[in-house]
Amino acid sequence: MTDPAADPHILTIRPGEGDYAWTFGGAPPVARIAPGTVLDVFTEDCFGGRVRTTEDLVSQVCEFPFVNPQTGPFYVEGAEPGDTLAVHFVSIEPRRDWAASTTVPLFGALTATHATAALHPPLPEAVWIWQLDRARRLCHFSARDSEWELTLPMDPMHGTVGVAPANLEVRSALVPDAHGGNMDTPEMRAGVTCYLGVNVDGALFSLGDGHARQGEGETCGVAVETAMHTVVIVELLKHVATPWPRLESDTHLVSTGSARPLEDAFRISQLDLIQWLARDYGVSELDAYQVVTQAVESPLANVCDSNYTCVAKLRKEWLPPGRTHGGLHDELRARAAALR
Amino acid sequence: MTDPAADPHILTIRPGEGDYAWTFGGAPPVARIAPGTVLDVFTEDCFGGRVRTTEDLVSQVCEFPFVNPQTGPFYVEGAEPGDTLAVHFVSIEPRRDWAASTTVPLFGALTATHATAALHPPLPEAVWIWQLDRARRLCHFSARDSEWELTLPMDPMHGTVGVAPANLEVRSALVPDAHGGNMDTPEMRAGVTCYLGVNVDGALFSLGDGHARQGEGETCGVAVETAMHTVVIVELLKHVATPWPRLESDTHLVSTGSARPLEDAFRISQLDLIQWLARDYGVSELDAYQVVTQAVESPLANVCDSNYTCVAKLRKEWLPPGRTHGGLHDELRARAAALR
Amino acid sequence: MTDPAADPHILTIRPGEGDYAWTFGGAPPVARIAPGTVLDVFTEDCFGGRVRTTEDLVSQVCEFPFVNPQTGPFYVEGAEPGDTLAVHFVSIEPRRDWAASTTVPLFGALTATHATAALHPPLPEAVWIWQLDRARRLCHFSARDSEWELTLPMDPMHGTVGVAPANLEVRSALVPDAHGGNMDTPEMRAGVTCYLGVNVDGALFSLGDGHARQGEGETCGVAVETAMHTVVIVELLKHVATPWPRLESDTHLVSTGSARPLEDAFRISQLDLIQWLARDYGVSELDAYQVVTQAVESPLANVCDSNYTCVAKLRKEWLPPGRTHGGLHDELRARAAALR
Amino acid sequence: MTDPAADPHILTIRPGEGDYAWTFGGAPPVARIAPGTVLDVFTEDCFGGRVRTTEDLVSQVCEFPFVNPQTGPFYVEGAEPGDTLAVHFVSIEPRRDWAASTTVPLFGALTATHATAALHPPLPEAVWIWQLDRARRLCHFSARDSEWELTLPMDPMHGTVGVAPANLEVRSALVPDAHGGNMDTPEMRAGVTCYLGVNVDGALFSLGDGHARQGEGETCGVAVETAMHTVVIVELLKHVATPWPRLESDTHLVSTGSARPLEDAFRISQLDLIQWLARDYGVSELDAYQVVTQAVESPLANVCDSNYTCVAKLRKEWLPPGRTHGGLHDELRARAAALR
Repeated sequence: MTDPAADPHILTIRPGEGDYAWTFGGAPPVARIAPGTVLDVFTEDCFGGRVRTTEDLVSQVCEFPFVNPQTGPFYVEGAEPGDTLAVHFVSIEPRRDWAASTTVPLFGALTATHATAALHPPLPEAVWIWQLDRARRLCHFSARDSEWELTLPMDPMHGTVGVAPANLEVRSALVPDAHGGNMDTPEMRAGVTCYLGVNVDGALFSLGDGHARQGEGETCGVAVETAMHTVVIVELLKHVATPWPRLESDTHLVSTGSARPLEDAFRISQLDLIQWLARDYGVSELDAYQVVTQAVESPLANVCDSNYTCVAKLRKEWLPPGRTHGGLHDELRARAAALR
Repeated sequence: MTDPAADPHILTIRPGEGDYAWTFGGAPPVARIAPGTVLDVFTEDCFGGRVRTTEDLVSQVCEFPFVNPQTGPFYVEGAEPGDTLAVHFVSIEPRRDWAASTTVPLFGALTATHATAALHPPLPEAVWIWQLDRARRLCHFSARDSEWELTLPMDPMHGTVGVAPANLEVRSALVPDAHGGNMDTPEMRAGVTCYLGVNVDGALFSLGDGHARQGEGETCGVAVETAMHTVVIVELLKHVATPWPRLESDTHLVSTGSARPLEDAFRISQLDLIQWLARDYGVSELDAYQVVTQAVESPLANVCDSNYTCVAKLRKEWLPPGRTHGGLHDELRARAAALR
Repeated sequence: MTDPAADPHILTIRPGEGDYAWTFGGAPPVARIAPGTVLDVFTEDCFGGRVRTTEDLVSQVCEFPFVNPQTGPFYVEGAEPGDTLAVHFVSIEPRRDWAASTTVPLFGALTATHATAALHPPLPEAVWIWQLDRARRLCHFSARDSEWELTLPMDPMHGTVGVAPANLEVRSALVPDAHGGNMDTPEMRAGVTCYLGVNVDGALFSLGDGHARQGEGETCGVAVETAMHTVVIVELLKHVATPWPRLESDTHLVSTGSARPLEDAFRISQLDLIQWLARDYGVSELDAYQVVTQAVESPLANVCDSNYTCVAKLRKEWLPPGRTHGGLHDELRARAAALR
Repeated sequence: MTDPAADPHILTIRPGEGDYAWTFGGAPPVARIAPGTVLDVFTEDCFGGRVRTTEDLVSQVCEFPFVNPQTGPFYVEGAEPGDTLAVHFVSIEPRRDWAASTTVPLFGALTATHATAALHPPLPEAVWIWQLDRARRLCHFSARDSEWELTLPMDPMHGTVGVAPANLEVRSALVPDAHGGNMDTPEMRAGVTCYLGVNVDGALFSLGDGHARQGEGETCGVAVETAMHTVVIVELLKHVATPWPRLESDTHLVSTGSARPLEDAFRISQLDLIQWLARDYGVSELDAYQVVTQAVESPLANVCDSNYTCVAKLRKEWLPPGRTHGGLHDELRARAAALR
């Protein structure tokens, strides 16, 4: 057997203007890849790069539904419904020295929206341009109406990672659901492996929506949005089902749930974590319920998108004996290290 | 002026069987205290100490509404509606070398409940007795149906801290709302100052529901429940309003919201944090909305009680110039240090 | 046995300024009554009669928490926890030839509220004075900003009917929950019997919040509010439990649920109706689930109060053989007829 | 101009086994039709006709996602985004003398589901076969576990009516949203006109999911499901936008909203009704808010599907002067009458 880390197949993708996908499902694959392929991709920001100054209001420069462009989809050879795609994030690096955030009319957690409908006029539309110091990994904020300069650590992540959905559906890239998509969790950072259940032949994986950083809940609906240079290794777990997107870091197992109301997203993520423990670590659901109750970390991901997303995290040092997915995450970490 | 830390008034309370309160509001004060008083109290566990073995099912040994006993209430002299009570947690130490957790019929996040009504019979009722190693600050778990022994760090906290509610109401000690109460946030640990808006003369502060530790969301509805020996300093901020309970640690400002559905608890906590920044740090709400979006930590507190609780945390190093409450938290830290 | 309808005990109550209750629970009884008593009462409108012209803004003329005055409470002799109070509405008649409706800042279904918190400023505050033609039983509306005169049928009802809550609680008269309270259902009209589970000795029944009419959901939060002259017969069902308020009309059984989110109010009301059928008509829960699914009417009551209220109605002609509460509703109808 | 009612174009569609659509959007049109076309169609029941006896459990005889077959889609010539399709239901008649209803594992309002995730095992799976007396327009129920025979009026309707969604999406026929789809409202009966906003060229209209009758909320998730013979007239309103599906009967304007939580579905439907009044009847939103509050009927449609659906109904006799859509509904009623 050849060692894939020794001689990985690397596919470099730099999409042109018309090469992005705006949906999960329904878009033709940009490439067919074998499991084990390393993807070296560029992702555009959620605005398609159109918000560049504080004068560029989303309602004027963006044209729905052409927001949140996705790089992909990639057809993974051999992937079939009932399998799991493992996407390991080797690196996520901003491609610009600036990023944009905005309010968007009738979008966000602290405003009337199209769903939480009200008689209020929309909140003021505003843009903030953040400066990114990539060498020092910092994000600089300048207030609009206030005397306030602030520097936050860079913590790059992808808001949107997913596969084609089940049930013959095609979903907007703005939607998070069981297929992944726009989950907007800060946990989706370099060093993490994301597990996605395969719903259609080839899985049709894509990603986008890079954030230089984001708070938990993405309160106003828009993070520190920027283009990314991202490297992932794509692997395939045959005959392993993953009902909702899961993540694994060096330190944590992470389950997700995306639904409304937010308590349903919580319920999904917590039950998924319990069932993950029961399946791969041989404990009873009731015992797992007890340990999760006392040990889980439950940071919010987004409370602004068309579904809200919760994550449920458990420290791996607290797991029962056993390992998930045959130790694939550790193996992918090793392969990633060999790429540097 | 005398330095209260040099010679603090310490009131020691060790309630007898019939001395607990079961509500916020509606119970006569157990003591009148001056602002600055140090309370050295015992709190019983949420079961009234009745769950001691795995045979002690809540439905058999507890008698509703006599659950979640509160130590207090304390009438704080000079406290009036529109003021804020500042409760600084000097120490929270388990009083037993064991703690209990359970499932409770029709209670918890992953079960039908009286509100999320369904045709299912209740889940099995179970008890886990945790061993507490107080010297090494560890909690030992033994599974019921599985081969699983686990040791978690102790992280003692109070699930229930509050004052009498507004609007002439009396609320069960099981309820969290704007008056505090059963918020069940792990942030309520030693070293933290909790700010509570005063709704009635004397504020009528009480606390209980000690947890040796708890995960975020308190999934099954019951933490690692134990009796506590707790020391707090109670201070009064005259003419300072606090709409929802706030916490301050050495590192974070923390806002809370308690409501259903869970997204409303999120909205309340995030808006409260924004308005706290606007009031005490002089920034615009829109700029604060932007920074909170990128910088907030949003761990869940409880998703099982009669209201769900979210917290919104912002690192103090990221605050604009200014300080909240005249630096009271730092002063209380100093007073607490002098008590040791 | 004497026929109570032949010689009923009638108690007339005309409260003075300071005689109202603002809560369920926590207020001293205004009278002790025997089961079978006819109460002939005046109820003030939800504004305490203070909104009389389009210039009388709620935020200026009302003083919280002194809104939604209740007539009562009445201590019903012999009523104990586990019993059911049956309140038959003989008549509900407006006492004025006008009524008021308003918007209230941060209250209503189509606005940001204290719970559905947002950064919007409140909607404009407005008052509409409706003219009541009591002889012809009509309500006349004149628009504020539009050319629009409209006449609607009068359909008088009580928004707020309840008893003292369980769990040692005292709840604001603005809150609906398992004790009844501010359910705001148009089903609470003359000719209906309301069943309320008793939580404390004497039940402590009160009522208020008369509406000359109201749409389903009470969208803006305020109905056509007016003072009422109301006659009810109060009966007691010993050893009959009623978990959530139920109503019975000549044509329907009606269950209610009050909770957030609104789907929980729906779940409670539908499950309650199923369990009512199972208990009193001897059918299985699964068969009742099927029939309710195909036959229920589910009009909303309120989607604006601190809990939302759904009702679940089933035509009595579609019931299985059997009768509920020993036919008490029919008997109360007969007694009511004898009063005229 | 020719009178379309005098010589309407009638298109008869009797789909074969493989001719159904399972989604809105994403399916090729079965026919191109001109506005004014009369469609005379057969629709299969939601089970694809596979549940015929009480032994036919959905989990065994149905294969997801091949449930809820739709007849169509129809490409309406000249329909473009920003237009409105008007679908007038001339007749909806059951095609069988029986219908089926069932429980479905993890589906329905009174059970744990995939979204309202819990640790409960699914409720028992059961089937009820209803007998349809089409001559007398009655539905006969026989209980499974109980002594209970019941006859209910037939009230045929379509649970699922819609067009291709916006935002490049393809949605399962089980989903209700702004494009219509599986709204499951009993209001969708013969004599009604349904207005659907067009999102893609040709609109791509389809329909299915006939119910011999259904309660409000479709509590267990499954109505009295049967195949239908349905006649509709399809018209096109150019340059008229319809944000959410609307219905018009001889007596009512009806707005719908489909979302989670249920209060958002309520908010959408009520705001839509207010904005419909403001647009077509020239009244202010605030005056319409007041009248809707006092006059609206708000029966639930479904509280079981992937979005919940509310409707908001206003009696046409209570409308301000004016008419909607140039009186199209009345014209369609006349055309329908001429077809008989």
